Amino acid sequence: MQIDKGKVALVVGAGASAGIGGAIARRAAAEGLHVFVAGRTQEKLDALVSEIEAAGGKATAIVADTTQADDVARMFDVAEKEAGLPDLVIYNAGNNRFSPLTEMSDSFFEDLWRLCAFGGFLVGREMARRVLPEGDGVRDTQATLIFTGATASMRARPPFTAFASAKAAERALAHGMAREFGKRGLHVAHAVIDGIVDGNQVRSRLPEYLDAKGEDGGLNPDAVADAYWTLHMQNQTTWTLEMDLRPAKEEF
Amino acid sequence: MQIDKGKVALVVGAGASAGIGGAIARRAAAEGLHVFVAGRTQEKLDALVSEIEAAGGKATAIVADTTQADDVARMFDVAEKEAGLPDLVIYNAGNNRFSPLTEMSDSFFEDLWRLCAFGGFLVGREMARRVLPEGDGVRDTQATLIFTGATASMRARPPFTAFASAKAAERALAHGMAREFGKRGLHVAHAVIDGIVDGNQVRSRLPEYLDAKGEDGGLNPDAVADAYWTLHMQNQTTWTLEMDLRPAKEEF
Amino acid sequence: MQIDKGKVALVVGAGASAGIGGAIARRAAAEGLHVFVAGRTQEKLDALVSEIEAAGGKATAIVADTTQADDVARMFDVAEKEAGLPDLVIYNAGNNRFSPLTEMSDSFFEDLWRLCAFGGFLVGREMARRVLPEGDGVRDTQATLIFTGATASMRARPPFTAFASAKAAERALAHGMAREFGKRGLHVAHAVIDGIVDGNQVRSRLPEYLDAKGEDGGLNPDAVADAYWTLHMQNQTTWTLEMDLRPAKEEF
Amino acid sequence: MQIDKGKVALVVGAGASAGIGGAIARRAAAEGLHVFVAGRTQEKLDALVSEIEAAGGKATAIVADTTQADDVARMFDVAEKEAGLPDLVIYNAGNNRFSPLTEMSDSFFEDLWRLCAFGGFLVGREMARRVLPEGDGVRDTQATLIFTGATASMRARPPFTAFASAKAAERALAHGMAREFGKRGLHVAHAVIDGIVDGNQVRSRLPEYLDAKGEDGGLNPDAVADAYWTLHMQNQTTWTLEMDLRPAKEEF
Repeated sequence: MQIDKGKVALVVGAGASAGIGGAIARRAAAEGLHVFVAGRTQEKLDALVSEIEAAGGKATAIVADTTQADDVARMFDVAEKEAGLPDLVIYNAGNNRFSPLTEMSDSFFEDLWRLCAFGGFLVGREMARRVLPEGDGVRDTQATLIFTGATASMRARPPFTAFASAKAAERALAHGMAREFGKRGLHVAHAVIDGIVDGNQVRSRLPEYLDAKGEDGGLNPDAVADAYWTLHMQNQTTWTLEMDLRPAKEEF
Repeated sequence: MQIDKGKVALVVGAGASAGIGGAIARRAAAEGLHVFVAGRTQEKLDALVSEIEAAGGKATAIVADTTQADDVARMFDVAEKEAGLPDLVIYNAGNNRFSPLTEMSDSFFEDLWRLCAFGGFLVGREMARRVLPEGDGVRDTQATLIFTGATASMRARPPFTAFASAKAAERALAHGMAREFGKRGLHVAHAVIDGIVDGNQVRSRLPEYLDAKGEDGGLNPDAVADAYWTLHMQNQTTWTLEMDLRPAKEEF
Repeated sequence: MQIDKGKVALVVGAGASAGIGGAIARRAAAEGLHVFVAGRTQEKLDALVSEIEAAGGKATAIVADTTQADDVARMFDVAEKEAGLPDLVIYNAGNNRFSPLTEMSDSFFEDLWRLCAFGGFLVGREMARRVLPEGDGVRDTQATLIFTGATASMRARPPFTAFASAKAAERALAHGMAREFGKRGLHVAHAVIDGIVDGNQVRSRLPEYLDAKGEDGGLNPDAVADAYWTLHMQNQTTWTLEMDLRPAKEEF
Repeated sequence: MQIDKGKVALVVGAGASAGIGGAIARRAAAEGLHVFVAGRTQEKLDALVSEIEAAGGKATAIVADTTQADDVARMFDVAEKEAGLPDLVIYNAGNNRFSPLTEMSDSFFEDLWRLCAFGGFLVGREMARRVLPEGDGVRDTQATLIFTGATASMRARPPFTAFASAKAAERALAHGMAREFGKRGLHVAHAVIDGIVDGNQVRSRLPEYLDAKGEDGGLNPDAVADAYWTLHMQNQTTWTLEMDLRPAKEEF
């Protein structure tokens, strides 16, 4: 049951140090991996890299747009050149936005899909092209690709219909890739986050929401990172495709 | 329980006379509705219109690209001007295509989504904008929007991952719209076609497939149209969001 | 597409004239079938039979406990002897009851299962034994077995956990039987009733509930019967395994 | 994020040392818990206890029938008296059996339900009664109840219809209890085992099956126990209700 957990991780959508992306980046670095964090905002990535380096870890920022194939290829190029092929990739891009359907613009609907599903496709395709062995072989090291899903991935409720449609597209993508790549040694998983992540973003934007829930009402990002790390560490006879994560206090 | 079933239908994706789109167009015309059939190929639409007119029905062809908002608005404009606001709209666009993920182009993945989900969004939004009453009122006549789904809408299997992702996005869209619009009198339904439709297309492209299944191995398009018409006729205390349709012979 | 719809129906759980069982019994009788109505209370069955006969239909009451194999066999014996083998069987037994888990008695949990799932097993097994042809043949007439499901069939919410467990067991039974019997000509379907049926029972027990919903807030039993009849009439290339039915006004 | 993981575990359905029950019992003992193993066969339980004790752990065998309320109460009585209230309870009873529906006896259908669902109800109710605080309080220590599910829990395929019905009932029970008890501090989870567990039983009964799959074709019981232990250790802001576990080689 010894698994070589690899040496390199890539976290796409690691903008906020306080969110899931930041937490899994810190965790992977703490486990000894060189972590590449990709996102759109240089300052946020730099802050995360500094935090990881201050804790003794190795991290590199990559400013990139995950909805562009060239940028996605560059993420992997940079990682391969600097540290090696990523064995653990997290697709964590995407924002929950809402709007009544009748008032929604074309770009609102499209952009959510592009960020959640199309970017996930680009990243998954790029990873598969690089890590899958030629032919029908199976990899020696554990390679893992984890998508961050949401309640909306399975249930479309207005005014979140566009988000739900995008997340459902992403989920189906993850399931299809799991079936296509699993047998060749790439573990694809979909984590369903059901609740609010207790990070800086929600603390500043919706403080009353978390306050109303009381202590432990939001998901602890480090605990989410624990779950992701566990998925990465799973023995290849017991892989999980999908698991939900929610606060004990959450209604569901 | 008397329902005014309206006078106008719009079928988007009615290219093939022998498929589901053609069958529901013929059925709606036989029920006395003026049927507008939209698709990309003038000749196919004309053939369908001629067939309907020969049977004594009223039909009009609209050449349009359902992935363009302007074209979608024009579909409704033409119908409204010529016959009235469509009470029954069928979203039947989309083709099942397949490819291994690693060999898939960006446009392959995107185009499927655009045809299945984005076009469905444009049509559903346009219909809602036009048929929903202002405020919280409820319509007097039965308005119905039906999406043609597939097994892949719920289950992603390679090499159909891109198609499954697109259909999952479309399904979530349908579910979200059903929840948003139902209370205001617009019935949104999602029909899950599980099997091969026994139309000219498959007869010419995959004859051996249907032959292997034997008699009644493919879905009869007229029987699918029956099911769609039944959805349109449902009493508003017993609306169906989702129903599957498959041959008795189909494995599932 | 001509279907011989048969001559005999059996409705199990037809106690209340005003509920789904009563409505489908009246509908089948109106379509010319001899309807056998089975339940536990002689007076209720007699009232339903009288109502059907007054409308010119043929009906027979069978007092029986659907959780007893002998009683179930007797239902079919009586029907066969008096009118012929039932082509349409509705399994409509079961009551929604609730309790916190910790306060629940053994018999509370077991009785719900016995009524929803075990009785459904007995009826489905008996029907299959009688209507399925020997070997791998396919029936000439359309035989249909419909189970009345509920929202709880798919989603377990306290304090309805025991009911949900029983309905989930019944639903899985229906799905398994559909897969096992469909190819041999017996159509098994599961209708998911999502909402309150607007019958005498709820009118007398929960009047304020329906009043709060306003007009058309509950499912019209005759409209549910329409849906069941449609399932029975489906062409064998387009069978439905599962469909939901809910008022336009219902939140879901 | 420090969790008191408790001192006592109860594994119901721990008959085979080589299966999941045995593996989680060994694991909990290795983590320092006193493990109570309950099952029907004294010799099997004794062998497991000896194995645990030989490894330096604490274990006690309880011969009991999990479908009898008295026996279930006795399991908890013995544990409480000897070591304390169990914080981790695993419900692992149940055997996959199959039969065509028409040839199935009443007791075949009922016994599967009794073992999978009714026994699970008795164990879950007993645990909740004992570990839940009075009123609306929340526990200080992490209490966890894990059900061992199967693919059939979600999908009914003949000739496994009876098993699927029983497992669906068990799954709904687990979901309902999770919703009812979670807020009060009892974590209920449902693990979906998709594949064959590579234990002595299948090695002796179906050796050709595992051989055909090749190395790592069956689930490693110790890896399943890892997943169960992880569920028990989850931070209460990130609880999982359901996770699937399958070999990378498994088709799904």
